[in-house]
Order: sequence, then structure tokens, then C-alpha cells
Amino acid sequence: MSDDVKINRGLKGVYFERSGVSDIDGAAGELSYRGYSIHDLAAQSTFEEVAFLLIHGELPTPAQLADFDAALRSARTLPPQIHDIIAACKHGHPMDVLRTAVSALAALEPDSQRTGEDAFIENGIRLIAQVPMIVAAHEAIRQGRAPVAPDPELGHAANWLWMLKGQEPSANAARLADVDFILHAEHGSNASSFAARVTIGTEANLHGAIVTALSTLAGPAHGGAAEDVMKMVREIGAPENAAAYVKAKRAAREAVTGFGHRVYRREDPRARHMREGVRRLGEEMGAPEWYAILQAVVEAMQPYARHGLNVNVDFYSGVIYQLHGISMDLYVPIFAIGRMPGWIIQCIEQQRRNILIRPLTLYDGPQPRAYVPLAGRN
Amino acid sequence: MSDDVKINRGLKGVYFERSGVSDIDGAAGELSYRGYSIHDLAAQSTFEEVAFLLIHGELPTPAQLADFDAALRSARTLPPQIHDIIAACKHGHPMDVLRTAVSALAALEPDSQRTGEDAFIENGIRLIAQVPMIVAAHEAIRQGRAPVAPDPELGHAANWLWMLKGQEPSANAARLADVDFILHAEHGSNASSFAARVTIGTEANLHGAIVTALSTLAGPAHGGAAEDVMKMVREIGAPENAAAYVKAKRAAREAVTGFGHRVYRREDPRARHMREGVRRLGEEMGAPEWYAILQAVVEAMQPYARHGLNVNVDFYSGVIYQLHGISMDLYVPIFAIGRMPGWIIQCIEQQRRNILIRPLTLYDGPQPRAYVPLAGRN
Repeated sequence: MSDDVKINRGLKGVYFERSGVSDIDGAAGELSYRGYSIHDLAAQSTFEEVAFLLIHGELPTPAQLADFDAALRSARTLPPQIHDIIAACKHGHPMDVLRTAVSALAALEPDSQRTGEDAFIENGIRLIAQVPMIVAAHEAIRQGRAPVAPDPELGHAANWLWMLKGQEPSANAARLADVDFILHAEHGSNASSFAARVTIGTEANLHGAIVTALSTLAGPAHGGAAEDVMKMVREIGAPENAAAYVKAKRAAREAVTGFGHRVYRREDPRARHMREGVRRLGEEMGAPEWYAILQAVVEAMQPYARHGLNVNVDFYSGVIYQLHGISMDLYVPIFAIGRMPGWIIQCIEQQRRNILIRPLTLYDGPQPRAYVPLAGRN
Repeated sequence: MSDDVKINRGLKGVYFERSGVSDIDGAAGELSYRGYSIHDLAAQSTFEEVAFLLIHGELPTPAQLADFDAALRSARTLPPQIHDIIAACKHGHPMDVLRTAVSALAALEPDSQRTGEDAFIENGIRLIAQVPMIVAAHEAIRQGRAPVAPDPELGHAANWLWMLKGQEPSANAARLADVDFILHAEHGSNASSFAARVTIGTEANLHGAIVTALSTLAGPAHGGAAEDVMKMVREIGAPENAAAYVKAKRAAREAVTGFGHRVYRREDPRARHMREGVRRLGEEMGAPEWYAILQAVVEAMQPYARHGLNVNVDFYSGVIYQLHGISMDLYVPIFAIGRMPGWIIQCIEQQRRNILIRPLTLYDGPQPRAYVPLAGRN
């Protein structure tokens, strides 16, 4: 193989497909879903509406939204074996338990084997409803409580908090979760969505692709970052320690968690909504110190902003969950709940003009050599 | 975004990394692992030896092989919850059940959370030993039998057949399974190995990447092909029907299963070993008609060989499994058992010089548009 082959490490800058779902302008720091600015959607929309928009391409009319919402609410059921499976591995990380349960759904629900666009939409709606139920059921089971039944009167985000904690959330808490899900709903060909497309490329079904996406999201360099930011904030402990912390990290040439993004060269547009959420929630709950620590870190990182090291969405979200009393190992599953519509539409797009996704590696191993039978080796 | 961006659909021909594991010369129809021809390995080696070669880079000395083999045999244990989880979803497709069980191992075995090369090797050896146990346990449980305990006196392939059927296999049958595993052990950046690398790119652990690989292998355009070939052979029914079958498929512009490969332009070098296996096994078992049907299909496809439509490895393997009385839905799991070392070393390589694998999609959706509140839509 010739040595002048170009190797695109990380496939950075390589386009592999067209997509009509989200537009990321990394230089300008802008994100839109189907042409609608993330800022408008975060301020005025709901997760159900955004899920419809992502999957069907247009904002729903009131009648369409009512149907879609009814479908989501009536999909809030799990085969009884799922609780047994969760109980069998309840001490595991919630991402591993969630992935195991979604994988088991493929074995338990025959409809999951269907492919084609209608099947993907139907199975997708079911999974959007089931994934938060699994996360909540695991939380209950590992705490020794019985899983809470869904409340058909509550919307997607509020029902999730209800099932997670067994008490109805305040309107503020439900709206904050709703906005969090909107902000995480879709983000182009990030690693988990891309991996899901690779799975669909072999003509696999949607459940298989979502399992792939969950495995990929779990990595610390993807969905795991919010958990890492929270650990950092705890380590820093007080705003006045932030500058020294950042200085030490930079001196050791280590990354400061929650900064930088493969695509954005300016601040991640989702960050501002999470920042405002942290500030307001911290004030409401009489715990402003978290916001103060985060902003002290941002200030200490200011000199590096021109190198593209701006805060990303994960920087603030962990603290929001912390203020809600949600344990750290649920941060990635929360990301997954939000990202479901994005993964599903990416899989639908991939399937529409499907092709096996199979790039190449350039061989740099030993040249051809003769086999030596075992007895002749030492 | 400019319109002159090049889109590499399917990432065909795009190099994303170097790899020193297997060399595929698609034009010449050659495959080697670590410099050793697949023909030498299929004829003279064992799966255990090939697994060591792939993972460590060199053929083992007798002492190294003894240690490696001992490690594999002593790793033949499953946490007791795995049988419960398999039982809970026993009616599912064996690939879905296998994937669910491997995912659950991540939740049940704390060591699975470790990353780094030593951890990947240790966890990899455990998974190589556990995956065939899971497949065999599922087969037993769904047939209402108790899972068979592993036999520490038997090698990898023979122990698998023993656990699958509850009776010790003949030396011939064990060797045929051994060769099958060798031939499937590694194949560059195929879709499942590539997807596993994407998962590792986010710094995820090995179990997560293997789950991704299993999801991706399950697709009919990847590991599912052997099952499809068997369905085709049954549909054809007799050698004299093959020509008409091929003619009808070509006229309908449908693909003939088991022919063609993204990489090979000549015959898949693995096919000859499987062909010889089908021929010999069919004769031994007094069932030569399967081989005759397959060869009649090959003959009918001859005119298309110059377009690169040669038989691939899947074309013969299904019939071998059929002759062994293995049900069709186990063909893909058998592929997975063989591919374990390849997935593991690809993950190890990826982790050594890790980078987030995140290509781009070119946005072709709606231009920026103003959000219209729900009440204003109809």
C-alpha cells in the first residue's frame, strides 16, 4: 500500500452524508433544528414539540401535537421482564443498566425487529417513552423502592421526574428538565449518532442502533463530561480556588473538563441556557456557590478562549442535576433521554438512502511471513 | 455551507487510521493476520493460537500458548444473574440475547469499567471465553434444558460445541468449528469493528465497544448474510433450479446473497476453506445435495464474476452449520464468537492513539426560519 495515502484521523473534517436535521455553525456558535434556532426552541417550545419537529421535519399543528403526545403517553409501558432484568444488575452503572434494558426490549418486543421508516417511527416513539421509565425504575429498584407507575396526566419531562422521585415535580423543575431535553435532543453526527448510523448501515434495526448509541454516549469524552464537571466543581470547592486549579491543569497540560468541542470555535450556543438555569436555580434554592465556582472557572479560562476553549453544554448541566438532588451517575442517562429523537431521526435518514459505512485502515503491520509450526517456536 | 464539499458516502475508500493487525488485498483476494496468510492459519493453526497472535502481534511459544489457553479456560465462568437475564428474554433472537447478556456483564463485573491496555486484554480474554458460553446457555434455556457446565479438558471450539449440545463433539466437528472461528477472527475495519472503534473513541470501555460491535454485526448486510444464504439454498431446493433462480434475481435487479464484498474484487480467500468444509462434511454425512446446490449457484453466477461478484465467506458457512444441526438464528452469534479477538485488538489499537471519531454531515435542511408559537399553526 502506497505511503502517500491520506489518513483522516478521527475523520475530522470528512463529510460522509447529507442531513437535513440540525445545522451547526461552529465558527458562529449557532445551532438550529430544522431551521429553528436552538434559542427560540429553548425559550418557547417543549420537548414533545421538538421531538415531533426533529422526526417529521416541521413544527406540529395543535392537532398533530395532541396525537403525538398521546402516542408518547400511551407508549409508557414496559414488558414485566424488564424490571426483573434491571433488578438482576441493579448495582451496575445506570448507563450499563439502561443499555442492557434497551437491548432486552429488542428480545422481548417482536415489533423491534421491523425495519423501514414507519417501523422506525413507531419503535422510536415507544423508545422515547420507555428510556426515561427504565432510568427511573432502576433508580427506584437500587434504592429498594418499587418502581413508580407513570402518570398519564403529566408531560414527558414532568412524568420522568415523577417516576424518578415518586413525587410530583414543581413546574419550575419540570420546565428545567424539559429545556435540558430540548437542548440535548440533536447535534449532527456526533460520535453516538454517527455510531448508530454505522449500525443502521448494515441494515440492522432501530433498537440495535440505539444500543450502539448508548454504548458510545457513555464514554467520558462524550456524554460522560457532565459527570466529570461535577467532580471538578467539588474538587475546587470554592470560587477563590478556581484560578489556581486552572493554572495547575494548564501547567500539567491536562484538559479542563467542560471546555472545548470538536465543532464549536465559539461558545456552545446551548451553554447560555444551562448557565441561566444554574444561576436562577441556585438562587431559588439558596445555593449560589455552585454558580460562583463555575463562573470563576470560566473567568480563569478566559485567556484560552481565543484557542477555541469555550464552555460547552456539559459545563453547566451537571450542576443543575446536582441542585435537583440527582446522583452523578444519572447525568449520562439524562443526556440519553434528551438525545433519543436525534438518534432516531439520524437512523431514519441513514436508512432512507442506506449504504454500508466501512472506511479503511492502512496496514502497517509485518510483511508476509512463513508460518512456523508450534513445536518450532521458542 | 458551500456546495462543492466532497461527500464520501459510506466512507468508501477513506482511510481513518493505520492498523497493524490484518492486511486485506482486495484486488489479489488475499488476507493475512499479522503477516501470516489466512491459508496457513486455517490449515495449521488453532483459534487459541490465532487469538494470541492477533492480540499480542506474534505467534505464541508453547509456554505462552499454554498460559493463554489456561487463562481462557479459567475465564469460563458467568455471574449467576446472567442465566436469569437470558431466561427473562429467552424467546428473543440469539443475537439480541447475546448482546443483552454482554451488556449486563458490564453492569455485573466491576472490572469491566477499567480502561487501558492491560484492562482491555484481561477483559478481552474473559469475553472471548464468556461469549460462546452465553450463546450455548441461551440455546439450552430456550429448549428447556439446564445450561451445560464448561469442560476444562476441552479447547475453545470443542467446549463450545459441548456446551451447545450437551454431548462431546467429534474431532472433525470440533476442528471445523475451530477453522470457522479462525476464518472469522479478524477482517480490518469492517462495519462492526469500525463501530466498536467509534465507541472507544469516546474513551468508553471494552464491554461497551463489544456491545456496539454485536449490534452492528447483527445487520443482514454484515453478519446476517450466512442466515440469508441458507434461506436461499432452501428456496432453490435442488441444483437444477439454481440457474433459473439466479436469472430471476438478476432480472429483478436483486442481489444474490453470499456474493460480492465491499473490499474483495476476486474471490474472498476465506471462501475456499469453507467450500472444502461443506464438500467434505456433506460427503461424510451422506448429504451431498447442499454442496451441489451451492456450486450450481456459483456456476450460474459465473458471468458476473468479472464485475467482482464472487462468493464471500458467508456463502458456505451457513450450510456447514446446517449440516451440524445448528439452527439458523445461531449463525450470526457463531460469527461473533469467531470475531471476538479481532474486535478486541481493534479496540486496543484505537485506544493506544485515541481520538474522537466524528465525521461531518452536510446540512441540506431548511434555511433559518422564525419560530411560530403553537396557537399560530394550523
